[in-house]
Amino acid sequence: MIELDDVRQAAARLDGVAHRTPALSSRTLDERAGARVYLKAENLQRVGAFKFRGAYNAIASLSPAERDRGVAAVSSGNHAQAVALAARLLGTQATILMPEDAPANKLAATRGYGAEVIGFDRYAVQRDELLDELVTTRGLVAVHPYEDPRVQAGQGTLALELLEQAGPLDAVLVPIGGGGLISGVATAVKALAADTRVIGVQPQTGDDARRSLAAGHRVELPVPRTICDGQQAPIGENTWAVIHERVDDVVVASDAETVAAMVFAFERLKLVIEPSGACALAALLAGRVAIAPDMRIGVVITGGNVSPERFGELTDELRRAERSHP
Amino acid sequence: MIELDDVRQAAARLDGVAHRTPALSSRTLDERAGARVYLKAENLQRVGAFKFRGAYNAIASLSPAERDRGVAAVSSGNHAQAVALAARLLGTQATILMPEDAPANKLAATRGYGAEVIGFDRYAVQRDELLDELVTTRGLVAVHPYEDPRVQAGQGTLALELLEQAGPLDAVLVPIGGGGLISGVATAVKALAADTRVIGVQPQTGDDARRSLAAGHRVELPVPRTICDGQQAPIGENTWAVIHERVDDVVVASDAETVAAMVFAFERLKLVIEPSGACALAALLAGRVAIAPDMRIGVVITGGNVSPERFGELTDELRRAERSHP
Repeated sequence: MIELDDVRQAAARLDGVAHRTPALSSRTLDERAGARVYLKAENLQRVGAFKFRGAYNAIASLSPAERDRGVAAVSSGNHAQAVALAARLLGTQATILMPEDAPANKLAATRGYGAEVIGFDRYAVQRDELLDELVTTRGLVAVHPYEDPRVQAGQGTLALELLEQAGPLDAVLVPIGGGGLISGVATAVKALAADTRVIGVQPQTGDDARRSLAAGHRVELPVPRTICDGQQAPIGENTWAVIHERVDDVVVASDAETVAAMVFAFERLKLVIEPSGACALAALLAGRVAIAPDMRIGVVITGGNVSPERFGELTDELRRAERSHP
Repeated sequence: MIELDDVRQAAARLDGVAHRTPALSSRTLDERAGARVYLKAENLQRVGAFKFRGAYNAIASLSPAERDRGVAAVSSGNHAQAVALAARLLGTQATILMPEDAPANKLAATRGYGAEVIGFDRYAVQRDELLDELVTTRGLVAVHPYEDPRVQAGQGTLALELLEQAGPLDAVLVPIGGGGLISGVATAVKALAADTRVIGVQPQTGDDARRSLAAGHRVELPVPRTICDGQQAPIGENTWAVIHERVDDVVVASDAETVAAMVFAFERLKLVIEPSGACALAALLAGRVAIAPDMRIGVVITGGNVSPERFGELTDELRRAERSHP
């Protein structure tokens, strides 16, 4: 299990390479949420998502011999771009397995960073087995999107920054997909500010972390159908161990609440946020988290990789749904 | 004419009230521009635009007797919201003249801050005469959107921040509407960093500042038809005096270039920028400014008040035009 020192070492590796993203505040948001809110805007991170932090830390931690072999990853999108860019920056070659129905902009961006992309059917195959096979066949080094402790430590660096930028917080809301981000964040937060609650947020249809915490053991669910394509992976064994020990609670947001949060972010915050990236903000705005006046809440905005076309489709659907169920 | 001290005093008044907006950078943008670019993201300012700085500084400078009378302004949108919010924060009443065809979100937001809004036809009437009449009839204090030196000084405070955040710059690109922002920015920049070029950017159809600089005297044009609704006002006598003395050059961007910059900002920077707010970025991306490698360029993003619907319309139009003239 990773510890604070791993996160601190990752921060040293990322210094001057990753953006120190702003922790944004907005009176409008504070009024809507009934609390003082700090948005850690990782949509402004390199590759448009927090994933860069983990991928870079993992690849920067490899030996020269490992880097010579090249790296491989499986991802619905942002981890793919992150590994591709980190590999390029660190002088190694990346091969990425991506779902065939991943957003076109994510596929194109990954190839644009010089990676080889291999497609697969996200509803038909076990992604981890596919990666194992690729790695074995080609002799590559796998960079797992969330089970790799170096990835978790790298992703946790955003919590070090958030605590410095925002000061004391009552709670931090963190989207959960595979659980790498919240593992890193909870490790840093619980070591530095034990009283700060760490609350995970999942799509309503894919709440395996919430069910797992309730059951006391890791619960597995089928791949959820949700607009939050970055949150379709199940939590892993390693991330479950960290979540079990260090995460206080998990709440959910519906897809409609997530689109409403994306629209709020566009209109009032002037930020482009992808569905998975807006999940924690959605939970806050939809009243899914118990808020007392004067609470200070950190919210991680994990990414912004949504195309204008997809954003338009999602907002059109939301408006149609609002008209038919006013 | 305002001087550096006016801008510094405004900065003291705005401390803790206005956001110190981030100066964002992006490798993707640097590669596209061929320079190191710092985006002063005033779309993340209160009311979604730099206008808050000027309005607040102006109203905060009033005497108690003046504040008791109430304030009035005429604006196509962001100055309206800015005066409305500043008035509310400073305990006075605002009455705002707005074009009837101003974006609905701007009209609603201005009323939302507690201001009384009076509509007018932007193509039919002289806005300054209308404001004079209102002020005289009701005994209000006018806050002119750009001719008021307190407004210019307040708006110039973003340049103090940008120079601190970005370090030495070869040039700063600033959208010009009425010229208040560039008056404040040029005053601060020329006093603190005389070698930094201050370059204004106007819509192609409304280039009165460019023509004025070329002619050596203020040139007046009809109200331009452009998507940049924040840049339809002519430069004023006071702002022209500052522009004439302190602005190095003015370039233009076409409406299509501006929409392309808005899309670039959405896709690659994850920022929502309104048309007038994207004008300077558009000029940079469209090659309207001579760039040498290793140059360091500041670009002011002035605002983000565009609705998702309007953003969708503009991008659809751009795509249709690209298909018919590939």
